[in-house]
Amino acid sequence: MHLVTGGAGFIGSHLVDRLVSKGEKVRVIDNLSSGRIDFIEGHIGDSVEIVIADLLDIDRLSDAMEGVTTVHHLAANPDIRLGTKVTDTDLKQGTIATYNVLESMRKNGVRRISFSSSSAVYGEVEAMPTPESYGPTLPISLYGASKLASESLISAWAGTFGATAWIHRFANIVGPRGTHGVIYDFIHKLRSDRGVLEVLGNGLQEKSYMDVEDTVNGMLHIIDSSDEGVALYNLGTDETVSVSRIAEIVVEASGLEDVDIRYTGGDRGWPGDVPRTWLDVGRLDSLGFEAKRTSEEAVRRCAESLIDEIGL
Amino acid sequence: MHLVTGGAGFIGSHLVDRLVSKGEKVRVIDNLSSGRIDFIEGHIGDSVEIVIADLLDIDRLSDAMEGVTTVHHLAANPDIRLGTKVTDTDLKQGTIATYNVLESMRKNGVRRISFSSSSAVYGEVEAMPTPESYGPTLPISLYGASKLASESLISAWAGTFGATAWIHRFANIVGPRGTHGVIYDFIHKLRSDRGVLEVLGNGLQEKSYMDVEDTVNGMLHIIDSSDEGVALYNLGTDETVSVSRIAEIVVEASGLEDVDIRYTGGDRGWPGDVPRTWLDVGRLDSLGFEAKRTSEEAVRRCAESLIDEIGL
Repeated sequence: MHLVTGGAGFIGSHLVDRLVSKGEKVRVIDNLSSGRIDFIEGHIGDSVEIVIADLLDIDRLSDAMEGVTTVHHLAANPDIRLGTKVTDTDLKQGTIATYNVLESMRKNGVRRISFSSSSAVYGEVEAMPTPESYGPTLPISLYGASKLASESLISAWAGTFGATAWIHRFANIVGPRGTHGVIYDFIHKLRSDRGVLEVLGNGLQEKSYMDVEDTVNGMLHIIDSSDEGVALYNLGTDETVSVSRIAEIVVEASGLEDVDIRYTGGDRGWPGDVPRTWLDVGRLDSLGFEAKRTSEEAVRRCAESLIDEIGL
Repeated sequence: MHLVTGGAGFIGSHLVDRLVSKGEKVRVIDNLSSGRIDFIEGHIGDSVEIVIADLLDIDRLSDAMEGVTTVHHLAANPDIRLGTKVTDTDLKQGTIATYNVLESMRKNGVRRISFSSSSAVYGEVEAMPTPESYGPTLPISLYGASKLASESLISAWAGTFGATAWIHRFANIVGPRGTHGVIYDFIHKLRSDRGVLEVLGNGLQEKSYMDVEDTVNGMLHIIDSSDEGVALYNLGTDETVSVSRIAEIVVEASGLEDVDIRYTGGDRGWPGDVPRTWLDVGRLDSLGFEAKRTSEEAVRRCAESLIDEIGL
């Protein structure tokens, strides 16, 4: 039995799809704060069970560990920008939730954990592309801090109590069912004003994007490739796309004409936004895994599918 | 006004001594869980105030920020081994306490924080001596995890809200008033049995030790040398001493004859103990700072002073 925390969320629900397609049994635990039942509705009752609970409820979480062999811990606050206004969400839904997951695993004899970390742990770095060995990791967002704190808890549990762990440092993951992020924001802006698209920052931010199908395939490939201690991998594509190019792609996908793309200026969208992220994916390559879509292809597919889901 | 969290503790009280000797005003906040009033008693009322409160009490902590320009955040659970038995102490007294310190600073407009991190953030590494740029940092103790989590919170606060931070990754710090650690343990063992000294592990563990006076001088030197963003420095000596040599030094300092030193075996004292730590202190050197005592000299001074304090 696989337990997927945040399994009704954006990436979690795609992971559930993939596990089901491989014939695996899955239990989802999700508080539905950003996840949606309809993302996994088709599977429920068949090979998927769902527990609607918050990871801060350690009793419900502990009950959900019954019969589990591997935990895929994806639940987290997905909105990086929130930390600029509310400072305890990432602490609670990131760090403390991860502590609860690990403690429930320990008490129930569950020893395998796959964790969705983030390129945000690197903070603002000079070394591009950035390898896993980059240090010191000094995140500049509260979200990034909670991911690094969670990594360190997982590593400590493995070192002290003997868990096996896979840590995936994600690029920006995009695709159908996205519930946040720049493409999602742009589409909502075009819904409210079909003539103007306001872009936070100067548009020169450059980041790696990865399609969510590639992401869940990559996660499972990494899990299958290593089976002891703590395996840590960057998970992304080998190139980047700029925010201004994303704005163009979203406008193209919308079919709208004469959209005025306006920039608020400044080198980043908000305090804590990392202007450039480009992950070195050499370690992932060496496992024989390659993403099928480039950053730009992933962004385009995401824009088209979200416009389809959300409507304009 | 300087605020020293854990200022009645081992390293904290030495920092208070040093700040007072420089003519600074100091407020101490300490829950006295391992700190002791008598460590700073001589200063109280003169240039030092004490607030007896836990950092989990955010109201008391916030009140203690009044008039503060620099926070020296040293409070933490000092017993690394505790995490093998009680898993939430480092989370609460480390990570969540640091969150509370940062949040209280933010709400009170306090922008400078000096933080006592640890070589434990590195985990079990091949690269010796270990530079600050070593990555990925995968701690194997819950204590190390809480230190890395705290570093990441500080870095995120600096990146998001604009704090200035100094992070000191400590070697093993030893000296008078020590309240835990291998030398302290050995002395207590000799008190209960003057003929046998049991050593956890095979005695081959090799670590850098630093005298507590050198440590507080180093911390203040680092603070004086940098004044923007996040400055991160290893703080230790440039060599190591083995646990078996420490056992010999403690026995010599005790004056006891014919002590039988016995080893429990295994490469480490307990799960989560890092067998070898040796910090690269090149960055600290480049600031013009040098420790006055070597690892072995620090261990000897500590053994002599603790035997004097504790008695045999």
